[in-house]
Amino acid sequence: MAEVRVVLLAGGVGGAKVAEGLQQLLGEALTVVGNVGDDFELWGLTICPDLDTLMYTLAGVANPETGWGVAGDTFAALGMLARYGEEVWFRLGDQDLATHVLRTALLRRGWRLTEVTAHLAGQLGARARLLPVTDAPVRTRVITDGGELAFQEYFVRRKCRPAVRGFRFAGAAEARPTPEVSDALMSADAVVIAPSNPFVSVEPMLAVGDMRARLHALSAPVIAVTPIVGGEAIKGPTAKMFRELGEKPSALAVARRYADIIDAFVLDTRDAHLVPAVEALGLRAVTTDTLMFDPEGRRRVALVTLEAAEVVP
Amino acid sequence: MAEVRVVLLAGGVGGAKVAEGLQQLLGEALTVVGNVGDDFELWGLTICPDLDTLMYTLAGVANPETGWGVAGDTFAALGMLARYGEEVWFRLGDQDLATHVLRTALLRRGWRLTEVTAHLAGQLGARARLLPVTDAPVRTRVITDGGELAFQEYFVRRKCRPAVRGFRFAGAAEARPTPEVSDALMSADAVVIAPSNPFVSVEPMLAVGDMRARLHALSAPVIAVTPIVGGEAIKGPTAKMFRELGEKPSALAVARRYADIIDAFVLDTRDAHLVPAVEALGLRAVTTDTLMFDPEGRRRVALVTLEAAEVVP
Repeated sequence: MAEVRVVLLAGGVGGAKVAEGLQQLLGEALTVVGNVGDDFELWGLTICPDLDTLMYTLAGVANPETGWGVAGDTFAALGMLARYGEEVWFRLGDQDLATHVLRTALLRRGWRLTEVTAHLAGQLGARARLLPVTDAPVRTRVITDGGELAFQEYFVRRKCRPAVRGFRFAGAAEARPTPEVSDALMSADAVVIAPSNPFVSVEPMLAVGDMRARLHALSAPVIAVTPIVGGEAIKGPTAKMFRELGEKPSALAVARRYADIIDAFVLDTRDAHLVPAVEALGLRAVTTDTLMFDPEGRRRVALVTLEAAEVVP
Repeated sequence: MAEVRVVLLAGGVGGAKVAEGLQQLLGEALTVVGNVGDDFELWGLTICPDLDTLMYTLAGVANPETGWGVAGDTFAALGMLARYGEEVWFRLGDQDLATHVLRTALLRRGWRLTEVTAHLAGQLGARARLLPVTDAPVRTRVITDGGELAFQEYFVRRKCRPAVRGFRFAGAAEARPTPEVSDALMSADAVVIAPSNPFVSVEPMLAVGDMRARLHALSAPVIAVTPIVGGEAIKGPTAKMFRELGEKPSALAVARRYADIIDAFVLDTRDAHLVPAVEALGLRAVTTDTLMFDPEGRRRVALVTLEAAEVVP
């Protein structure tokens, strides 16, 4: 059959796994659109944690222990920054630091983040195309019991401890999806929403300009994969956030957040009892083992997702 | 006796050795004024090779093999930059990179280079005070047979191979010594010119504003230490530069370049035959073993230099 063009909307570690699985199946025909809401500046360097996790994973150099950072990276520069009296709560490896130094230099030369990302990912050997959802700055702000926090302040420094009351995506309304993202969506045979945190990975992307409306209007199928299995998140604070916002964490609760834009929802076999409720939202429900412990697991989830979209390559 | 305040004008590796020797004798009463003519920008980072060599040496963390860089430093970030297709002719260690990242961040926040340098050197544990000669950008340009080159381009990338025709210190005439340098000179009991390369380490400092005239007018003694022994440089291209400029390299040739501003000249015992010629320039000549292979050697040369200035602590 003809090449199947798929666009994946993804956050960090969870999104990177299905990205890598889809890359196994689709290669260059996969376009990964990454969240930029958790981007921030540290020592004048522009750091894009989600794009970097996606890039390192797609290039096969990600740290398999953590899911983020570069495999085998060292921390000599960070040790020196501590010696200079700097706070070093963000774990910045030496190889990872090189990424931020070069990205910042290229941005200062006037490159768009899209161009920088394509260059870095290409040099590292990623086969899929990696795009930031927008070239404009979007910054996720976490509204907590203790006030509003910048995302990395909440996520890394405070270790997600403050109770969440809501989120704000500063700059998102004024931002626009890039022409590259628009083109990829227009020519996609299917769009997949990764099993990423809906609140801080996926929704900052949906909040960029008219992204949500575009996905709604798309004729190609849109499929989301659950980040919640058995009422708990595979990784990260998704379940905790649902609870703090007064909702029981479940795959169904995730499906509800995307119901206006998706056609099908992939949930875990362990949550098969939720299928009728998902279908009652007007969605096709597909169950599978959604855990991705190894490359084979990633490939399996990717394949089931494409089957759910009826675009198996 | 009372505290003896000494100002040392120094370039990189050779200057750092006598700086460390003087620090052994004088501690906080030593002010080291460093050359900024070899500063440059790489990946948007401001790199100050001479200040860094002085700082690392004064703090006791310099690489004893090379004289520059940090002892035991690793090169993971540089390897990653190479992987991204960047040219990596400048050997940037991971700990060293942290210095440049932090310096650049502080400069962007509006700190003066003087403030940044004091902060970094203080945090690392240098006891002597380290000052850039100026906060303004000064850039040494090397005029060669093959055209004009930026200093690091000549020194590191081209390994000093192009034949030298002259030098230009871009920005030096418009630059001014900092208030801190002015104050240190005004209150100094002696000023020492380190055994650094006269062309590209010392003269870029003398070219800053009216520095040369100030040293000439100073009532405190000014003493220079030879970087040339037996017609050859201890390290670096000093002798080669003299030859390419049509002059026989010798301690005497160095003494001549400083004759208008110094009172005494320290030359090596091996060059004792040059003493009458140095004295004919109107200078006091002092001979000693000027080689500094270890901390004891550095201390010895520092002590002889202070004796020559008649300001032994």
